[in-house]
Amino acid sequence: MLMKNSLISDLKKNIPPCNVLEKLEERYVYAQDASNSKEIKNIPDAVVFAENIEQVQNVVKLANKHKVPIICRGAGTNVVGACVVEHGGIILNFSKMNRIININKENMTATVEPGVVLGKLQQEVEKLGLFYPPDPSNLAVSTIGGSIAQASGGAKSFKYGTTKDYVLDLKVVMADGSILQTGASTIKNATGYNLNTLFVGSEGTLGIVVEATLKLIPKPQSKKVIMAYFDTVKEAVCAVNSIIEQRIFPATIDFMDKNAIYTVEKFYPAGLLVDKEAALIVEIDGFEASMKYQEDVITDLLQINRASQIQVSHNEEEYNKIWTARRSSMGACAKLKPNVTTDDVIVPRDKLADLVLGIREICKKYNLDVCMVGHVGDGSVHPQIPIDYRNEDEYKRYKLAKSEIYDLTASLGGILSGEHGVGIEKRPFIDKVINSVAINYMRQIKKTLDPDNILNPYKIF
Amino acid sequence: MLMKNSLISDLKKNIPPCNVLEKLEERYVYAQDASNSKEIKNIPDAVVFAENIEQVQNVVKLANKHKVPIICRGAGTNVVGACVVEHGGIILNFSKMNRIININKENMTATVEPGVVLGKLQQEVEKLGLFYPPDPSNLAVSTIGGSIAQASGGAKSFKYGTTKDYVLDLKVVMADGSILQTGASTIKNATGYNLNTLFVGSEGTLGIVVEATLKLIPKPQSKKVIMAYFDTVKEAVCAVNSIIEQRIFPATIDFMDKNAIYTVEKFYPAGLLVDKEAALIVEIDGFEASMKYQEDVITDLLQINRASQIQVSHNEEEYNKIWTARRSSMGACAKLKPNVTTDDVIVPRDKLADLVLGIREICKKYNLDVCMVGHVGDGSVHPQIPIDYRNEDEYKRYKLAKSEIYDLTASLGGILSGEHGVGIEKRPFIDKVINSVAINYMRQIKKTLDPDNILNPYKIF
Repeated sequence: MLMKNSLISDLKKNIPPCNVLEKLEERYVYAQDASNSKEIKNIPDAVVFAENIEQVQNVVKLANKHKVPIICRGAGTNVVGACVVEHGGIILNFSKMNRIININKENMTATVEPGVVLGKLQQEVEKLGLFYPPDPSNLAVSTIGGSIAQASGGAKSFKYGTTKDYVLDLKVVMADGSILQTGASTIKNATGYNLNTLFVGSEGTLGIVVEATLKLIPKPQSKKVIMAYFDTVKEAVCAVNSIIEQRIFPATIDFMDKNAIYTVEKFYPAGLLVDKEAALIVEIDGFEASMKYQEDVITDLLQINRASQIQVSHNEEEYNKIWTARRSSMGACAKLKPNVTTDDVIVPRDKLADLVLGIREICKKYNLDVCMVGHVGDGSVHPQIPIDYRNEDEYKRYKLAKSEIYDLTASLGGILSGEHGVGIEKRPFIDKVINSVAINYMRQIKKTLDPDNILNPYKIF
Repeated sequence: MLMKNSLISDLKKNIPPCNVLEKLEERYVYAQDASNSKEIKNIPDAVVFAENIEQVQNVVKLANKHKVPIICRGAGTNVVGACVVEHGGIILNFSKMNRIININKENMTATVEPGVVLGKLQQEVEKLGLFYPPDPSNLAVSTIGGSIAQASGGAKSFKYGTTKDYVLDLKVVMADGSILQTGASTIKNATGYNLNTLFVGSEGTLGIVVEATLKLIPKPQSKKVIMAYFDTVKEAVCAVNSIIEQRIFPATIDFMDKNAIYTVEKFYPAGLLVDKEAALIVEIDGFEASMKYQEDVITDLLQINRASQIQVSHNEEEYNKIWTARRSSMGACAKLKPNVTTDDVIVPRDKLADLVLGIREICKKYNLDVCMVGHVGDGSVHPQIPIDYRNEDEYKRYKLAKSEIYDLTASLGGILSGEHGVGIEKRPFIDKVINSVAINYMRQIKKTLDPDNILNPYKIF
């Protein structure tokens, strides 16, 4: 308690006192993130809102002095418990470092502070005819800093890649307070080790990103979304293969399984076909001149692959209606029980049907509901399991199912997270997919960059 | 000498003896790479051709035993001295590990050994309607292993990125002989630190890549190249900006400066306009349905930006003719003097004209010829300087010019290599663009992964 008091008092000397939260009820708010995990109960010792790089360095200095960890936080939309405290510590909140420092139209780069909301950045660059593709479904609130920490992807990852493909340069406050610049504002860089991508996905365990320069691309002129239903998951996957065989590269190939369709339709009626096993949502983009061609080929291929009720968006309203249905899945699923969990397993695409059907089997075995949505193009599945945490038996069954889902994913050559990260939630399971040599080197890199384990300790492994 | 004899004898016990070269005249061949550097004179102690992963592990074991370094080599097309020995050592040659292990059409991945020739892989995947974009100009001979080591780019990097954007998973033999698997065969991966890109561009200093799984994409249906000439470099850059403003994303926007045009035309006549300051070479690709639109908009914009003699390829022959002219630059330049050097500086695109004109000034000051080609889209310039190494005075002037070119690049916010790497050639200069904190962390990472400095020691820094 004395330590904590002296930490707070030191923080208030180095940070504007109004930016240091110390009351229990204030700190309590930061005990959770969107993982809404049953196991997470720790309350941070202090919550600090940094306004600039110097203040971040001050916090690092004090964390070293008081030997307390720093856990960085953007919007707290993290679903794996990566931005919560486990053993006390300072929550370093970036919501006040939210300036878009510069958008350079000619270079197609944006330099931003970590607290910039992803959707806000997208809007600003799109006004200039530019495009920042990573689009996690929480982009209306999630931050650039968080998306770098968790290597976020999104629906458009199939064609456009994930956050790692857009980070050109980072300013990072290291555990010793020094400032590391990882790259340059150039599109290519082969000068020394690639430190950029070492930090992307490192979940705040290697350094504190305080500024990012991101690559932008020209915004595609047109987009359209096509939705279609299938009687089997396998047919849906076959349809995807046929599309790619025609050398069409859709921006997105998403899917919803039977339960996801049914649950969305139940709570947010949108005219979805509830008797179908799977729906595909294919977004095409590019030059206006190519849109009709893409649409025609894809609708033909969907028909050949026995799709029913093929809908094509002809305007923004129709486009938004389809996407709203797809994105309502988590919200709808949350209405089934007091809690809902989501996951993020990914396999090579030729194993996707096995993964979806296997997850269904596992959930059936443990008497759990599951709604599945995901990115077929990527081989990525988000199983959403509604649950009541107060029901001990159900929770136990959920934990068993989760572990079996990871075993299945591993057996199919997949990996435990495509775009959410590991955090606390998946930490017990990473040795199912990462061999001990790799984990050992990851640990050594952590120790090299953060020898006193000050930065988000014990996350990932 | 005794040490060397026992090394050779140990190698022959562990590697098929015919795959161990020991004669001076054989080893001499491996004393140089395509950097053709005047300073490199060291001859390796042994040259070993590995045929499989176990043999690579054997070589690592013996290198540790005899305390000699291992320097990996693909086709030796490296232009920065990254694959030559400086202080003795074993050249580990991968030309016999050149199998394409698997091309998975459905997952759009290829798994290859490091000695696979890049152009060969491209041909094979293109037969299946797939595409591996990285295309360094030496792709007819250079290997995948080398392109991973040097983070190779190429003409298509503007739209399609570089090698780092296509590496999903690597098998790496580490300095202690263990095998590290860096990723997974999935398109996305947010499970632990990104070890893939730590090895891409690490120039064989952190581990020995023995297998790579690469991401492929659908092959664009059509391509065309448009060439145009300008009276000033600035006008050429303005034309590029206008194209991007129209939300067109060409696969390539390359350029040749006046001297490059003149020199190519002198030795390989192709009807180039020798009185022009700059030529742009714009490759567009995509759906057949969009080609006319792209061509019309681009030719209009080139005209508005005062381009002359706009040529559009209408068939493969015309396409190849334009690209052959652009790619002949280095060969033509090599005919001017007994030696030719190339470089690889890159700046944010809004500084490209300043870089090109500045390099011209610097070379003029030191009475050196320079032909410049490069990738305008990326802000990347390859100055090619013909030189006679026997002329001590000229060589001195060249070294001074080189250092000034790097100062200029740094002052424009650029970096010393976009796609060639650092090796030995640029090692003395990296502190011009990478700050001491970053260099220090790179050194620490090197020490963590290769504590005894067995792997390509002293390269990069």
